[in-house]
Amino acid sequence: MVIILKDGATKTQVNDLMDWLTRFDVKTNLVEGVHSKIIGLIGDTTGIDIESVQSQKIVEAVKRVQEPYKNANRRFHPDNTVIEVRGRKIGGGALNVIAGPCSVETEEQTIKTAIAVKEAGATMLRGGAFKPRTSPYAFQGLGKEGIDILKKAREETGLPIVTEVMDLSDLDLFEDVDIIQVGARNSQNFTLLKALGRCDKPVLLKRGLSGTLQELLMSAEYIMSEGNTKVILCERGIRTYETATRNVLDLASVPLLKQKTHLPITVDPSHATGVASLIEPCALGAIAVGCDALEIEVHIDPQHAWSDGAQSLTPEQFTATMEKLRAMAEFCGRPIDTAEN
Amino acid sequence: MVIILKDGATKTQVNDLMDWLTRFDVKTNLVEGVHSKIIGLIGDTTGIDIESVQSQKIVEAVKRVQEPYKNANRRFHPDNTVIEVRGRKIGGGALNVIAGPCSVETEEQTIKTAIAVKEAGATMLRGGAFKPRTSPYAFQGLGKEGIDILKKAREETGLPIVTEVMDLSDLDLFEDVDIIQVGARNSQNFTLLKALGRCDKPVLLKRGLSGTLQELLMSAEYIMSEGNTKVILCERGIRTYETATRNVLDLASVPLLKQKTHLPITVDPSHATGVASLIEPCALGAIAVGCDALEIEVHIDPQHAWSDGAQSLTPEQFTATMEKLRAMAEFCGRPIDTAEN
Amino acid sequence: MVIILKDGATKTQVNDLMDWLTRFDVKTNLVEGVHSKIIGLIGDTTGIDIESVQSQKIVEAVKRVQEPYKNANRRFHPDNTVIEVRGRKIGGGALNVIAGPCSVETEEQTIKTAIAVKEAGATMLRGGAFKPRTSPYAFQGLGKEGIDILKKAREETGLPIVTEVMDLSDLDLFEDVDIIQVGARNSQNFTLLKALGRCDKPVLLKRGLSGTLQELLMSAEYIMSEGNTKVILCERGIRTYETATRNVLDLASVPLLKQKTHLPITVDPSHATGVASLIEPCALGAIAVGCDALEIEVHIDPQHAWSDGAQSLTPEQFTATMEKLRAMAEFCGRPIDTAEN
Amino acid sequence: MVIILKDGATKTQVNDLMDWLTRFDVKTNLVEGVHSKIIGLIGDTTGIDIESVQSQKIVEAVKRVQEPYKNANRRFHPDNTVIEVRGRKIGGGALNVIAGPCSVETEEQTIKTAIAVKEAGATMLRGGAFKPRTSPYAFQGLGKEGIDILKKAREETGLPIVTEVMDLSDLDLFEDVDIIQVGARNSQNFTLLKALGRCDKPVLLKRGLSGTLQELLMSAEYIMSEGNTKVILCERGIRTYETATRNVLDLASVPLLKQKTHLPITVDPSHATGVASLIEPCALGAIAVGCDALEIEVHIDPQHAWSDGAQSLTPEQFTATMEKLRAMAEFCGRPIDTAEN
Repeated sequence: MVIILKDGATKTQVNDLMDWLTRFDVKTNLVEGVHSKIIGLIGDTTGIDIESVQSQKIVEAVKRVQEPYKNANRRFHPDNTVIEVRGRKIGGGALNVIAGPCSVETEEQTIKTAIAVKEAGATMLRGGAFKPRTSPYAFQGLGKEGIDILKKAREETGLPIVTEVMDLSDLDLFEDVDIIQVGARNSQNFTLLKALGRCDKPVLLKRGLSGTLQELLMSAEYIMSEGNTKVILCERGIRTYETATRNVLDLASVPLLKQKTHLPITVDPSHATGVASLIEPCALGAIAVGCDALEIEVHIDPQHAWSDGAQSLTPEQFTATMEKLRAMAEFCGRPIDTAEN
Repeated sequence: MVIILKDGATKTQVNDLMDWLTRFDVKTNLVEGVHSKIIGLIGDTTGIDIESVQSQKIVEAVKRVQEPYKNANRRFHPDNTVIEVRGRKIGGGALNVIAGPCSVETEEQTIKTAIAVKEAGATMLRGGAFKPRTSPYAFQGLGKEGIDILKKAREETGLPIVTEVMDLSDLDLFEDVDIIQVGARNSQNFTLLKALGRCDKPVLLKRGLSGTLQELLMSAEYIMSEGNTKVILCERGIRTYETATRNVLDLASVPLLKQKTHLPITVDPSHATGVASLIEPCALGAIAVGCDALEIEVHIDPQHAWSDGAQSLTPEQFTATMEKLRAMAEFCGRPIDTAEN
Repeated sequence: MVIILKDGATKTQVNDLMDWLTRFDVKTNLVEGVHSKIIGLIGDTTGIDIESVQSQKIVEAVKRVQEPYKNANRRFHPDNTVIEVRGRKIGGGALNVIAGPCSVETEEQTIKTAIAVKEAGATMLRGGAFKPRTSPYAFQGLGKEGIDILKKAREETGLPIVTEVMDLSDLDLFEDVDIIQVGARNSQNFTLLKALGRCDKPVLLKRGLSGTLQELLMSAEYIMSEGNTKVILCERGIRTYETATRNVLDLASVPLLKQKTHLPITVDPSHATGVASLIEPCALGAIAVGCDALEIEVHIDPQHAWSDGAQSLTPEQFTATMEKLRAMAEFCGRPIDTAEN
Repeated sequence: MVIILKDGATKTQVNDLMDWLTRFDVKTNLVEGVHSKIIGLIGDTTGIDIESVQSQKIVEAVKRVQEPYKNANRRFHPDNTVIEVRGRKIGGGALNVIAGPCSVETEEQTIKTAIAVKEAGATMLRGGAFKPRTSPYAFQGLGKEGIDILKKAREETGLPIVTEVMDLSDLDLFEDVDIIQVGARNSQNFTLLKALGRCDKPVLLKRGLSGTLQELLMSAEYIMSEGNTKVILCERGIRTYETATRNVLDLASVPLLKQKTHLPITVDPSHATGVASLIEPCALGAIAVGCDALEIEVHIDPQHAWSDGAQSLTPEQFTATMEKLRAMAEFCGRPIDTAEN
């Protein structure tokens, strides 16, 4: 951490600041120039609150050199984290494809979709039982019943199930879920993240609506600092001024995150674009930039979906898309995961 | 709601869609042109999920004419909502100033600050007991103890207390709080909003980090649709590409919200700018554009604040600022609320 | 400027870098810690290209301490710049109001509007002769004829005229214009800025569509570094994800720019919001935060305006608004400029 | 175009509006409901200024159904545009790779780089002679001399040359250039675009810093409406709140633009990310999503580059990257263009 001091800081003020800094377990170095003074902090600065330093009277600016996350940091954990889920290995070199409906609507719809996506080659089943909707008047998900339906679909197909938790108070219902998803709107619900950190279950953590990559890593750190290291990050597009797609899919985030962290990375082209015809090309691009998994919405009857129909693929479209994804995954040396329960 | 159909939609497809639309309690009108067809929906469209319409095969685009919120809508509730809190009336024509530390740190710090802001003319006390921090290694707030300290400060000064809830599971601790604040990161925590809708307590709802004004109103609608109509909206700056201030304070949102809704509007220049020297001018601007209340961070010793020191005013600075705010509020015909408990 | 070196930089590499840095006329200081090394550059770093430093192999990060602009910097020119235009003084403590139509359409429309805004108390006349329009099929402005009409309106009313230049090649036509405006889309048209720097005429420089405040100051620096110091900055809203207003008016930029620069600041609530009913409250807010001038669109017949009708005030609306602006300006100690030609 | 009328519009007002609309060569249809009235416009609405409609007193909202561009619209020109440049065909099914230094610095540097990128398989040479730099104190490019050096490099290697024009007044210097580039900051310099529309030379048009895809297509329309149909679009990242990369590369824009327009699409991962190590994965992703060409910065000595060194590849890195791009391009059925002059 580098602390740049304001012009005109007196010797006494500087000494006071140096004293104050001793509370953190770091070494300080003062550089004095004609016009400016700089203090370099050497040591583990993860625990230093940058804001408390910034609020010191004689501090002009502070710049972090080290990243403020440890557990999620590739620097300290060079090897890729591999998360095993009923035989599939996310982050282990093979590509996983998590497919299914936006919302679990009925048992028939869910099981039919599950069978269809399995036949097409998907390796996991997704489906929302708790749905974060902008309007209180929109369908809010089936809740517990939705999770029960997903379990039946898992029984039927053997596909592990991925579903979103919206609130801490529902966490008990997720005990038999395979991967717990945290949605974009909960990406900085720190109380929930800490609780998930005390579970022994993989967490698929989505980037916030306008979350930075560092914030995503800090949210992962919240989970990991409580003990749960099974975190999967998910790029799902960010909010910008552009309205042609629902969000802007930030594919450069995948190789960048791969440099910064050892955690596996998922890409969700369905929520990122909101346009069914863009899912296939974006999924191909996501494999090419190096993602470990994809999350794709499939509905047996998108026109009658209760949510997100416009961005859902039909089973036929998904099957055709999977053909191309399979070829791309093989070309990239990360063939689709074939492990079975 | 206006539904624009794709080129080449057949008569049968159009009829099917018209049939499907009958499920909603609205009247449909078809306009047929040479190149395009349009369906107009007449009636209460609040309950129609725009996405489910958009996902219909022959639909090119959908445009809402009516706003999707009812309870928060000025169209249906022309009179301003006035929220009474221990004698102060937010939205009743007088200006309220909610001041206090970012975090409750100690009893001494909180009570000293409370006394100072009261003397300077603040009408309510703010202070965080639960702190949403990006880093798990930063100070997370005193929790229950913090709320107890706030209550003591209220006893000491008579100032109503405003403090943030971070999770549903803590809600019991807020029973004796005067206004419950929902932070920007929880602005779309729908489970929490619904629970607050079942409380009989004013809720100060902050705009999301990158929340639209319509999303803010929909979040208010979540609370109101459960029965609690005491919602105060808060503009606290939005996230953009600009880094000169912490967020970009959107003051045009105040008169715009005043047109759209009857709910009172607060402005938080401290979080919006993150720069102590910008708080006074921005607070003056906020009064000039028509806000009902201000939320301002004050700390007896910003340099040693445990959070947000850089944007906190000292009691002396706050006193000087209040002089100007008082004059501006009077000039604007909304003098500072003088009611006492 | 502070240069943070990568872990593992060797002594030779560091020495090479220190040697390379001697090309700039600055003093270097090396701080060596256990885990990281930092070089502080002391002296005038304005001329150092931060990118060339960042591209050095062993450089982890670079942070500027000094601002990269000199002429526009209040640090080096503490006194406010006052720009005199036919007796009015922008930046001299009085408020100027620049009003008029978005586009000059006809002589009648322009002169009628000019007379109306003068009567209402406007101190300058604006009007577009060259119009930057997103579509090549939209009205592009009257060009030279438009400027001639503005001159006639000036003759009629005595109001100085402000009009936008779109291209260097048209600059000759602006010889007799009082203030040359540079639009948001030309805010980084550096060739044009340099040419304006060689004129002896006030330039009203708008912030870019998504321009940072530092970029705005650097664009001012382009003009000033060529010799023309008569630059007026204009906040006109920035592009964000929010669609409720055309742009997001960043009023905190006014006091912030006042700290950073000695140049006068204008606010354009018409382009910022794009909504006629928001102009008055935002203009009041702009005065309250400390602007030196306002730019407001007025059209004698907004419904038949050839551009921007939705955000234009009628003369009647403008007259009523001016009453309020006048009172606010007086309250803020910056009464409307009364100087006459 | 669909016009939604305000509540309470009277019969006379509606009739007046219908009359006013007859000025445009379109058919109008009125839909009258209990609470709202809608007018549908049928016909060619490209020439209608949406703003002039929006400013009509009784208009609540306007929604375009047809895109406002014709020449660039795939709907009217279903076949891909193929632009031939010295034997290479951009948009013709093969991938073109435009490589070279950010800035032309010296003859030696440029020719060495040109030879190196040609050997590695690049099909065109890029290099900046006129450089748009944020600071007036940064290197501004060699100007005419730079273009002469590029021509020598073309003589030496046979590679067509691509270079950026910054101002209309320099256009004569570009007569013998193969592709004229328009930078992000000039993406809405409409006077320049119109002048380029009167040239008979391919134009590589970059998306604006915060340009929408529709604005990009409208800027292409400016060029095309003047007669020049040889326009190549370029995705180069957009400005957002995220600072981990210089811009956010919007790869979904490639398949979306492919649907909307018949023009070829280039992707520039160097400017998009600003990070050398992200160029290869992003270029692979760009091919996977369907781009026609790539623009990549290569410098023989990035550490001593006069601009953009941090994002430049060395010839060795570029050669290694080209191996992977070649394989990906073949896999995607769009092998690298092998045509020679």
